[in-house]
Amino acid sequence: MNYYLEFAKKLAYDAGDIMLKYFGQTNISHYKGDDTIVTKADTEINQMVIDRVRAAYPNHGVYGEEDSFERDKNELWVCDPVDGTAMFARGVPTAVFSLAFVVDGAPQVGVVYDPFTDRLYTAIKGKGAFCNDEPMCVNDIQLADKAAVSNVDIWPEAEIFVEMSHLIDELNKKTYIVGIGSCINACMQVARGSFVVQAFAGTKGKNVDIAAAKVIVEEAGGRVTNIYGEEQRYDYDIKGAIVSNGVVHDEIISIIKGVK
Amino acid sequence: MNYYLEFAKKLAYDAGDIMLKYFGQTNISHYKGDDTIVTKADTEINQMVIDRVRAAYPNHGVYGEEDSFERDKNELWVCDPVDGTAMFARGVPTAVFSLAFVVDGAPQVGVVYDPFTDRLYTAIKGKGAFCNDEPMCVNDIQLADKAAVSNVDIWPEAEIFVEMSHLIDELNKKTYIVGIGSCINACMQVARGSFVVQAFAGTKGKNVDIAAAKVIVEEAGGRVTNIYGEEQRYDYDIKGAIVSNGVVHDEIISIIKGVK
Repeated sequence: MNYYLEFAKKLAYDAGDIMLKYFGQTNISHYKGDDTIVTKADTEINQMVIDRVRAAYPNHGVYGEEDSFERDKNELWVCDPVDGTAMFARGVPTAVFSLAFVVDGAPQVGVVYDPFTDRLYTAIKGKGAFCNDEPMCVNDIQLADKAAVSNVDIWPEAEIFVEMSHLIDELNKKTYIVGIGSCINACMQVARGSFVVQAFAGTKGKNVDIAAAKVIVEEAGGRVTNIYGEEQRYDYDIKGAIVSNGVVHDEIISIIKGVK
Repeated sequence: MNYYLEFAKKLAYDAGDIMLKYFGQTNISHYKGDDTIVTKADTEINQMVIDRVRAAYPNHGVYGEEDSFERDKNELWVCDPVDGTAMFARGVPTAVFSLAFVVDGAPQVGVVYDPFTDRLYTAIKGKGAFCNDEPMCVNDIQLADKAAVSNVDIWPEAEIFVEMSHLIDELNKKTYIVGIGSCINACMQVARGSFVVQAFAGTKGKNVDIAAAKVIVEEAGGRVTNIYGEEQRYDYDIKGAIVSNGVVHDEIISIIKGVK
C-alpha cells in the first residue's frame, strides 16, 4: 500500500496546483444537468486522475465525481477532484481534493489535500493517520461541551432530507453548527481534532465524498458509518454519512433514528 | 472620510499580519466567562486598534469585541479584531478583521480584511464598495435559483434562537445553506455577489459584527437591517441582522415574522 500512497500524494499536490491556478478566476464554472456546479478545476483534475491511474495501474478502475473509467473494478480509485465546488467557484477557500484506493468496497488508502492551508491528510488502513506526515487524532469532546463544533451538510434535494433536517433542529439546541461548504474538509477537521462530527446528506454517487475520509478519520481514532450507524461500501452509492470523533457517534445516530 | 479610510486600511493589513502569525499555532486560545473563545490574535489586534485610535484621534472612542475605550463617544471606531474566532482557532481559514467608523450610530466608513485570500473590502458611505480597489456589487439571484447560496449563523444561547431556527427550517427547504463560521466574511460574500444572504443571530455586543458590513454591503447595492426589517444603530447591541443582496430581503424578513 505504500506505493499507492506515494502515487496518491503526488496526484494530490498536482491537483492542488490546478485548484490554485483557477481559484479566484471568474467564468470557471457552469451547472450540470442535475443543477450541481462544476468548474474547470473539477474536470481537469478528474481527467488527470484517470490518465495517471490508467498509465500506472491499467488493471484498476476509477470512480470520479465528474467521470469514471471501468468503475466496476474490484480495485478502484475513488476521487472527488474538488470537494466544495460551490465555495471554490465563489472564492471561499475551503475546498479540497480527495482520493481513496478502495478494494472490494473498503477504503485501504486515503489522501486529502487542502491547497489553501497546504495540509496533506493521509492514511493507510491499520497504519495511523497523518497531517503533513505528523500523526493526528480526533478529539474527545462531547456535544454538550462549549468547545464542540459540528458540521452539517444538507440541501433541498437530498434524499435523506427529513432525517438531516431533524438532526439540524436537535443539534442546533445543544451545539454550535457550521457548514464550511466542503464535506471532506469538514471530515478532516474531525480527523485533526477540530470538529466533533460531520453529518452528510449525500447518497447517489456520494461515495466519492467519504471514501478517503473513511480510512483517514478511522485511523485518527474516529468513526464513520451511514446515518443509521451501519457500515457501508464506498464503491457505489451510500446512505449519507456520520463522521465523528467516536465519542458523539451513538448520540448522533440515535437523534436521526428518533425522526421516525 | 478618505483619511479615516486610509487609517483603517493600514490597520487592517497590520491586523492581517497578526492573524497569519498565529494561524495554525496551538495553544493560542482560551474561553471567556461567557464561554466564547478568544485567541492571542483577538486581544493583540484589539489593543492595536485602541492604541492607534487614541494616538491619531484622541477625541474618538473605540468599541471593540474584546476591549473598548470611551465607547459612549459619538464618533466611534467599532471593531471585531478576529471574526470567526472558533474557525481561526481550529485552523479553518475563514476569519476576517473588521473596522467601522460610526457617527451617531451610523457607519460611515467600513473596512474588512481577509488575510487568507488577501481581499480588502472597503466602503465610504455614498461612494461605492470596493474589493482590492476594484468596484464590487451584490448579485440579483433569487432564493429559489439553483445558484443561490445562503449563510446562517446561530448558536444555542442566541437570544433570537427561535426566529433563526425557524428561518433555517424554511430556508433549508428551498436553498443551499452554509455557515462558514465568520459572520463578517459571509457578509462580504454577499457584497461581492457570491452569497444571496447572511442571517445573523447576534444581539448583545454584536454590533461589532455588522457595523462595517452595513456600509460595505449597502454600498455594493445590498440591504442590511435587523431581523424584523428595521434600521438599527451600530454603536450598541443589535437585534440580529439580515444582510442580503436586496432581492431576497423581504422574503427572509417575512419568513422570520411568520414564526409568531
